[in-house]
Amino acid sequence: DSAKPAALRRLIAPTAAPPSTGETAKKHWYEAVSIRGYMQVRYNRLLETNPDLKCEQCDKSWGDNGGIFFRRIRLIVYGQLHPRIYFYLQPDFASTPGGSTSGHFGQIRDAYFDIGLDANSQFRVRLGQSKIPYGFENMQSSQNRLALDRNDALNSAVVNERDLGAFLYWAPTKIRQRFASLVSDGLKGSGDYGVLALGAFNGQAANRAEQNNGLHVVARLSYPFLIGKQIIEPGLQAYTGRYALSTDQLSRGVKYCPTMNYVDQRAAASFVLYPQPLGFQAEYNVGRGPEFNAATDSIETRRLHGGYATVSYRARVGGQQFYPFVRGQHYEGGKKYERDARSYHVRELEIGLEWQPLKFLELVPMYTISSRRFEDYQTQGNRQRGRLLRLQAQLNF
Amino acid sequence: DSAKPAALRRLIAPTAAPPSTGETAKKHWYEAVSIRGYMQVRYNRLLETNPDLKCEQCDKSWGDNGGIFFRRIRLIVYGQLHPRIYFYLQPDFASTPGGSTSGHFGQIRDAYFDIGLDANSQFRVRLGQSKIPYGFENMQSSQNRLALDRNDALNSAVVNERDLGAFLYWAPTKIRQRFASLVSDGLKGSGDYGVLALGAFNGQAANRAEQNNGLHVVARLSYPFLIGKQIIEPGLQAYTGRYALSTDQLSRGVKYCPTMNYVDQRAAASFVLYPQPLGFQAEYNVGRGPEFNAATDSIETRRLHGGYATVSYRARVGGQQFYPFVRGQHYEGGKKYERDARSYHVRELEIGLEWQPLKFLELVPMYTISSRRFEDYQTQGNRQRGRLLRLQAQLNF
Amino acid sequence: DSAKPAALRRLIAPTAAPPSTGETAKKHWYEAVSIRGYMQVRYNRLLETNPDLKCEQCDKSWGDNGGIFFRRIRLIVYGQLHPRIYFYLQPDFASTPGGSTSGHFGQIRDAYFDIGLDANSQFRVRLGQSKIPYGFENMQSSQNRLALDRNDALNSAVVNERDLGAFLYWAPTKIRQRFASLVSDGLKGSGDYGVLALGAFNGQAANRAEQNNGLHVVARLSYPFLIGKQIIEPGLQAYTGRYALSTDQLSRGVKYCPTMNYVDQRAAASFVLYPQPLGFQAEYNVGRGPEFNAATDSIETRRLHGGYATVSYRARVGGQQFYPFVRGQHYEGGKKYERDARSYHVRELEIGLEWQPLKFLELVPMYTISSRRFEDYQTQGNRQRGRLLRLQAQLNF
Repeated sequence: DSAKPAALRRLIAPTAAPPSTGETAKKHWYEAVSIRGYMQVRYNRLLETNPDLKCEQCDKSWGDNGGIFFRRIRLIVYGQLHPRIYFYLQPDFASTPGGSTSGHFGQIRDAYFDIGLDANSQFRVRLGQSKIPYGFENMQSSQNRLALDRNDALNSAVVNERDLGAFLYWAPTKIRQRFASLVSDGLKGSGDYGVLALGAFNGQAANRAEQNNGLHVVARLSYPFLIGKQIIEPGLQAYTGRYALSTDQLSRGVKYCPTMNYVDQRAAASFVLYPQPLGFQAEYNVGRGPEFNAATDSIETRRLHGGYATVSYRARVGGQQFYPFVRGQHYEGGKKYERDARSYHVRELEIGLEWQPLKFLELVPMYTISSRRFEDYQTQGNRQRGRLLRLQAQLNF
Repeated sequence: DSAKPAALRRLIAPTAAPPSTGETAKKHWYEAVSIRGYMQVRYNRLLETNPDLKCEQCDKSWGDNGGIFFRRIRLIVYGQLHPRIYFYLQPDFASTPGGSTSGHFGQIRDAYFDIGLDANSQFRVRLGQSKIPYGFENMQSSQNRLALDRNDALNSAVVNERDLGAFLYWAPTKIRQRFASLVSDGLKGSGDYGVLALGAFNGQAANRAEQNNGLHVVARLSYPFLIGKQIIEPGLQAYTGRYALSTDQLSRGVKYCPTMNYVDQRAAASFVLYPQPLGFQAEYNVGRGPEFNAATDSIETRRLHGGYATVSYRARVGGQQFYPFVRGQHYEGGKKYERDARSYHVRELEIGLEWQPLKFLELVPMYTISSRRFEDYQTQGNRQRGRLLRLQAQLNF
Repeated sequence: DSAKPAALRRLIAPTAAPPSTGETAKKHWYEAVSIRGYMQVRYNRLLETNPDLKCEQCDKSWGDNGGIFFRRIRLIVYGQLHPRIYFYLQPDFASTPGGSTSGHFGQIRDAYFDIGLDANSQFRVRLGQSKIPYGFENMQSSQNRLALDRNDALNSAVVNERDLGAFLYWAPTKIRQRFASLVSDGLKGSGDYGVLALGAFNGQAANRAEQNNGLHVVARLSYPFLIGKQIIEPGLQAYTGRYALSTDQLSRGVKYCPTMNYVDQRAAASFVLYPQPLGFQAEYNVGRGPEFNAATDSIETRRLHGGYATVSYRARVGGQQFYPFVRGQHYEGGKKYERDARSYHVRELEIGLEWQPLKFLELVPMYTISSRRFEDYQTQGNRQRGRLLRLQAQLNF
């Protein structure tokens, strides 16, 4: 029997038979499908001046009672199955189900597939859960970002950066190659979300079921210009929709709109100069959305605005890479995903260094100077200032 | 050091040492173990006439407030490790833990291994969580089924089709080959659950712990006859056991049997004509089980019956495949897994087309005309009629 | 286009671009990363004399209403990425989130990476969630252990054996090779946790967030001596820290220390004679920790002590392996992870046989004779004695 394992496999286990038609027979599964991943371990308690300074969306281990912490444990299964078909499946194993006292469960971040509409997939439709094309830093992978967490101003638009929807991306082949090399050459690109992007999505954020009868819509335009040896990428993007608050995020006693549905609209401008060797990146957004108002004890539709600017430098020394960086950020507005659409006023300065002794390992010390007012019905008047040293070790496989 | 990676791997990381004896040394892990999977994205809101028409077991995104939805995200790890040993491990990443407000967590569907009792594994014992051999459509993979959801009548026997148990399967080698080719040739077979199947299982359904001291038992007989070029497969199956209601599925105020244990018995007949090119498939089952009775406000042991018939056609046009189909179904009885063992009366007609432009991609539009009464203690008298267009895109990898 | 799949892959899917610098280009992903795993199916209800005899930490399917049960479903992704960099990622798919009525979700057991400080990684730093170097049987994989569950005495120190932290391991190359061969040669070794181990970790156990501002620290010394053809391994280990009870583990009415923080300190001695063919293994630990006291209705810091001894024999018959074994164990003390830091008095004798007909399959019948007092605020005076036959089938892939 052992002389004909393929025949036996088919014979003994037909329940698991792979897709049928001819093409796969030529390719082994491990040539069509690849696996990679990364994990991030953090510690935020050194040189901490204020244990009440916290940041729910950044990293739950800031401040009092925080310890050693997994920010992300990612396992990625992906493949270009056909010139027109690509898929990407990424669970995160640092996730906690609502109501559970233990964490580190596997939950989907990305699960999507691309269908090329032309032979070169210059036009692609993407179906499933994937990043919303809103904000350069939102789309840039955490594996590549310099600052440990995304900026509050644009990241408050889409928690976990993703949602379930259908998206159309367009970019000419030459620009698709440029998007690809901006990542593979270590320039910290965003990946290819097209020159032009259009999409419709549920609007309740990743891994949350739709809660109303209207989809959000988003559009984005971004182009990486080659100017001499430098590459700059300006971009514009906007989305609109209605966000439905859920009862489990409301404090007892807070007032809110009876439909629990709120306008959710934003527009942003982005500018990137890729680090050859000096990099600069800035984004700003304005919009409207639900926000807790302490003056009225109620959740109201209010204006929001904010952004950030990062200056970085890329140095290569004997096969190792060093990226010192400084980021300043500012945000005033609500965070619709948090309790009572918590109201925020954030000013923060971060000074850090990403060191890659090997491509498999990245070490980041980052010093954060922060002022954060974050108020909901239960924490009115809560404003915290402080400084802390943050440490991260990242393993890439 | 880099000159001898295998020795180093053993040296540096012995914690992870693989099984010991000689055989594995000859085979790479990726030759013994394979990975494949599929995902299904849906949208059910077009041409919808009644937003109160829902179907909990089918697809939670029907009707009011429904949106774009993942029905399944499957990752399968499997392998024929030895002529007598096969394993299959399949988490679904579209699952939600009880009590969690966010979903898309990875939860086991299948986790089993087969032990061949003879050299050709004509007799096999299967241990672990796997499909219960009850109902052809239940055993047929969702990757292959034409209609978007399984029929209510037979699927209400075993939610998620699976349970934890021990099963004995027997089939002669020639028939095992036929079961295999019915899947691999695109004929939408069920996979190999034997000509004869016998099993014992907990009876509380997949991923639920046993709740009483008696196992369910099941038996099945099914044979694929070759008649000229056509293949037909008639089958008979039955199971019996006691199902224990759990307190978390009871409405406050509903009356129920003090032991919370109910008789759970069914028998079914199946008939399949595989589509070469015209296909026909029908199943019917009768039985007894817990069901909410609005007349007495109580959960009682009641009779149930129902089935379905599907007519399909297989057309291949230039490497693409088209399967138009029509399915009518009927069910009267309880659903033991739902609140108060919800009472159902279902009549439904579905007209659809499965289009496979590539083996990696399947697109299904399906028009559903439905009448559903579904009553529990909180929804007495709830009867909904309506029509809707359902859409699915499926990616196979 | 199909003539250049690699270029296309880069072109079409840059979002998923792998790490950048040159080295990976030479190695396929499946050569750098490997996948293996195992699963354990159990049944504990045969010859049972007392359905009220249970063991929460061992196996939740003991006793009344227990059925067929998955104790572990493990999928391991690991690799020696570089002579100095190793990673190990192991979710368990037999886990249940707190509050969920269904189980078999994927939750991390191990997620760590090793960074070699010297060229041969004689000194290694391990970051992430991994086994705490406390107790030989704790570190030995369940895939290799003879008795179905770990002993109460040492395993009550670290539920699931793991925590999030940073560890330093040292061992000379020759001893690292010996640790490796103790596993790969079927001698049931612990894997390589160094001759000397030092570590700091959160102290709330695997997958639980830190709950206070102090880390636990641990140290261990263990050395496998070669004496003629026999190998013995004596070891010493100790840890100290403060454990924070969480409100969800307290009964209403139980009294406890206002800070909810308790001293948590232990020291243990280990001795192993590896089975060539006769094996002997014994461990004992003493310490202090939280424990429910029925006399005062309160959770107090109390002394604890206990250990076990196992005698085993290894027989190889025609490519098959047989390991008969006997284990006696004893424990008096609290279990800090259980409700009200439940108080235990355990005496247990187990007689079993591990049979490996193939390296892929292990079958264990084990007869258990047990006396267990386990008391919390709700179960005062609860003492259970009984006997049962336990069965396990394990699949290794």
